[in-house]
Amino acid sequence: MERDGFDRLTIWNLLQDAASRHEDKEIVYRKERRTFREFRDRVQSFAAGLQHIVGVKKGDVVACLDWDTMRYLEAYYAVPSAGGVLHTVNIRYPPELIYYTMSHASDSFVIIRDEFVPMIEKFKDMFSFVKGWIVYSDDGAGIETSLKPLYRYEEVLTSGNELEPNQDENSRATIFYTSGTTGMPKGVTFTQRQIVLHSLAVQIAVTLPPLNITTQDVAMPLVPMFHVHTWGLPFSSLVGGMKYVLPGRYDFQKIPEIIDTEGVTLTASVPSILYMLLNSPTIMQHSGALGKLKALIGGASLPTGLARKAEELGITVVGAYGLSETCPALTISNYNDRALMLPEEKRRELRYRAGVPFPFVSLRVVNEDFKDVPKDGKSVGEIVVRAPWLTEGYYRDEAKTAELWKGGWLHTGDLGVIDEYGYLLIVDREKDAVKSGGEFIPSLIVESAISEMKGIGEVAIIGVSSEQWGERPVAVATCAAQIEEKDVINHLNKYVEMGRIQKWWIPDRVIFVDAIPKTSTGKADKKKLKEMVKL
Amino acid sequence: MERDGFDRLTIWNLLQDAASRHEDKEIVYRKERRTFREFRDRVQSFAAGLQHIVGVKKGDVVACLDWDTMRYLEAYYAVPSAGGVLHTVNIRYPPELIYYTMSHASDSFVIIRDEFVPMIEKFKDMFSFVKGWIVYSDDGAGIETSLKPLYRYEEVLTSGNELEPNQDENSRATIFYTSGTTGMPKGVTFTQRQIVLHSLAVQIAVTLPPLNITTQDVAMPLVPMFHVHTWGLPFSSLVGGMKYVLPGRYDFQKIPEIIDTEGVTLTASVPSILYMLLNSPTIMQHSGALGKLKALIGGASLPTGLARKAEELGITVVGAYGLSETCPALTISNYNDRALMLPEEKRRELRYRAGVPFPFVSLRVVNEDFKDVPKDGKSVGEIVVRAPWLTEGYYRDEAKTAELWKGGWLHTGDLGVIDEYGYLLIVDREKDAVKSGGEFIPSLIVESAISEMKGIGEVAIIGVSSEQWGERPVAVATCAAQIEEKDVINHLNKYVEMGRIQKWWIPDRVIFVDAIPKTSTGKADKKKLKEMVKL
Repeated sequence: MERDGFDRLTIWNLLQDAASRHEDKEIVYRKERRTFREFRDRVQSFAAGLQHIVGVKKGDVVACLDWDTMRYLEAYYAVPSAGGVLHTVNIRYPPELIYYTMSHASDSFVIIRDEFVPMIEKFKDMFSFVKGWIVYSDDGAGIETSLKPLYRYEEVLTSGNELEPNQDENSRATIFYTSGTTGMPKGVTFTQRQIVLHSLAVQIAVTLPPLNITTQDVAMPLVPMFHVHTWGLPFSSLVGGMKYVLPGRYDFQKIPEIIDTEGVTLTASVPSILYMLLNSPTIMQHSGALGKLKALIGGASLPTGLARKAEELGITVVGAYGLSETCPALTISNYNDRALMLPEEKRRELRYRAGVPFPFVSLRVVNEDFKDVPKDGKSVGEIVVRAPWLTEGYYRDEAKTAELWKGGWLHTGDLGVIDEYGYLLIVDREKDAVKSGGEFIPSLIVESAISEMKGIGEVAIIGVSSEQWGERPVAVATCAAQIEEKDVINHLNKYVEMGRIQKWWIPDRVIFVDAIPKTSTGKADKKKLKEMVKL
Repeated sequence: MERDGFDRLTIWNLLQDAASRHEDKEIVYRKERRTFREFRDRVQSFAAGLQHIVGVKKGDVVACLDWDTMRYLEAYYAVPSAGGVLHTVNIRYPPELIYYTMSHASDSFVIIRDEFVPMIEKFKDMFSFVKGWIVYSDDGAGIETSLKPLYRYEEVLTSGNELEPNQDENSRATIFYTSGTTGMPKGVTFTQRQIVLHSLAVQIAVTLPPLNITTQDVAMPLVPMFHVHTWGLPFSSLVGGMKYVLPGRYDFQKIPEIIDTEGVTLTASVPSILYMLLNSPTIMQHSGALGKLKALIGGASLPTGLARKAEELGITVVGAYGLSETCPALTISNYNDRALMLPEEKRRELRYRAGVPFPFVSLRVVNEDFKDVPKDGKSVGEIVVRAPWLTEGYYRDEAKTAELWKGGWLHTGDLGVIDEYGYLLIVDREKDAVKSGGEFIPSLIVESAISEMKGIGEVAIIGVSSEQWGERPVAVATCAAQIEEKDVINHLNKYVEMGRIQKWWIPDRVIFVDAIPKTSTGKADKKKLKEMVKL
């Protein structure tokens, strides 16, 4: 019996559900405020316009180039609902890589914010594969451009057509490219079903302590919308009935004020964005709002020093872990039963870890023989996972796909340990790992230890070759105060005495720089660092 | 790429996930205590034994006749994981109907508790379709029986075979029969995927206020395990990492003690079971435990008087609504955004209603033209629903299936109103409805009003034919004190003055009886009542 596919795990059904259960809840971007119901109506109209005016057919890739805006959020829902595949283009890439990814994904249509139009126009002849450009500006003003065929976003939206929603849950919904510190970016894709199941699991996890999210929470992720579909929060937050705030282009002068006036209680970001938030010149004018703020931190391991600074301001910090390849949710530092038995001080430490698996995630830390390492907080192994929302593979790259899925488990390429409480701690990216005397040095733990030192800004450990040891660690750091190499070494020696790190993990050198170079997703770019310090 | 089906929404994957995330959590039945991990291992062994020793093949129906025990819970997981379809036989049926349903479902194998063996033995020649009987007793003692082929549960479990788990999410997992106050019982079936999605939605809903369920809660449903798979709680509670307590055969002398000693914080039942719990002779010896207890009440509309009595003892009462046909979750009295704005006294009233839809449930209240009635708390219509976990139809009954799914929506056969806060209130079963002067009298509201009267035990409204009005209502009640018909009428007249009921809803007569007859699932049997009072 055909029943319009209402039992399918599709993005359209997810939106319909959110709009019917939480019809009055708001989505806010600058002066635009829409209820879930109004938002649903706009998505419906825009998706219908994509089908009937623009001519999007099932499987067509539709790119989007924008900051974190209302229309981008509309595209998140409308493109898959119209049958298209949303390509969230990494706008932090240089134009050459933007072109590479758009060409590799075969983008048929492009939704583009006015300010990105000039960059594209420069190379417009190369975009012959694009069959339509849908442009818009925040103020609705006309945009002068030679791109064609050209569609105005609001005209597409108001075309008055009927949507035939894409109810095939196994159809591809998104594609994006991993930042790839080495080699060319690799494309990963996700289906509607994967995104919906991911949303349910994320929503179940965030309702648990210490986040304790309810419909009264207000979400404003500071994860760029091109980055792993904002960790799925644009979907899970609507499932959870949370007011959703879009920050636009990140302006840390203004973000504390938005948090305050919109009553934001949940944010999410990589550590470097948290760092920028804490160092915002206006943050202390809005310190009252920080006591209610919960910050989910993923994308890179959370340095303890940074987490403590945030918590001194009243922010509850919770670690999480995932990859572009994994949609991304893998682990989150919920309190599990063992953590709930611990004193607050100890529990807080666990909050800064990668955490425990989300529902439906199987996670193992394995040695070279693919056997699980002991859960002793010390034994390092590679993290391999299974879950219902992992990418099928790298787009148009069978060799790398086979490597990713070797043995039927997705290989994260990250090294981790699991402690006696069941909490995962990421100790290194496999490819960034420093192997000294045949043993891995968990550089993220050393970085975290250095970050706890007063006056230290950001820090990264890199490996330099050593005749005797194969490799030895070197620390590169920024600092606000007068700190010398020997201060850092003394600081770390104390950690050795406390039993928190090993003597041989202490870097051979500490080099101070003005800034740590970052990848486009805000992680320390260790490849560039190695070139910088030329050791 | 075949990856062992780990991304499938199957009961085996659900169990694996629960056992890995909450390995130390306990399941308790009398003196048997098992961790989720031990439970998973037993399920795995039993399911493997079903495949290899008993010979269960994909799609074979495997019946279970038992009270609410550990082994029944093992069967809940093991039968679908082995590829079978679990038939949860209604052991409250008379033998004739038990035979009817087992024959109609074509049960190939039967898992049976010792005490039900004699009943079956009497008619054993009629069960020629059964290819194997798997018997057990709590004490593990041998059971003397002439049933054959005969298997001992523990021998099946310890056979040492490997399980080949059924990872087809769309395979049928369960079948059971609706109690059907009229006509023969009708079979409904559910797939693995439906049960898993249902569990996720239930888990998301119970974490919200006022239930605020976390992993620290302890569940002991008092919903018989033959009844709509205990509302899905045996699955959702494991997803949610809750300790799970099985009460065995309900003994209200002992249940308060179990609640107290096991620290039960969440129960679930129909109103009549709540009534029996509140009237347990031992309840006041364990009154301290009641302050932490949350009671989910569904299966029949919750009379306000009963809810208030429970809350006076410290129990938080939350209404819910669903049918056998709907797996069953449809609505639950979570606080939505509007309710959260209300004062506690008003919010409490909403808690006693059927509530707001679970995630992924579309629910409408429609008039005869299939148009939505106004959400004004007054306009009565039929409740029709869509959700990803509704039964495909009645087993081997195309005509009734077509009726159930008329127009692509599942027709609940219940009449309801939606109030200005978005809360559903069930006002009647369509077939029990009293239609007076062409208008429905919402008998559940009248019953609830009478139940608030001091001294009234249980009450049911039935319709009797009237020359003038078509039908008129009559109340049938049990009472502890000296109450006369005129006292009830006076009581109701006050409610008319308060504007809570209409004058013409007041029953023409009030008849006192020693006990209200019940259907096998604990609802007032209105058909039998009508015969009893012979009006």
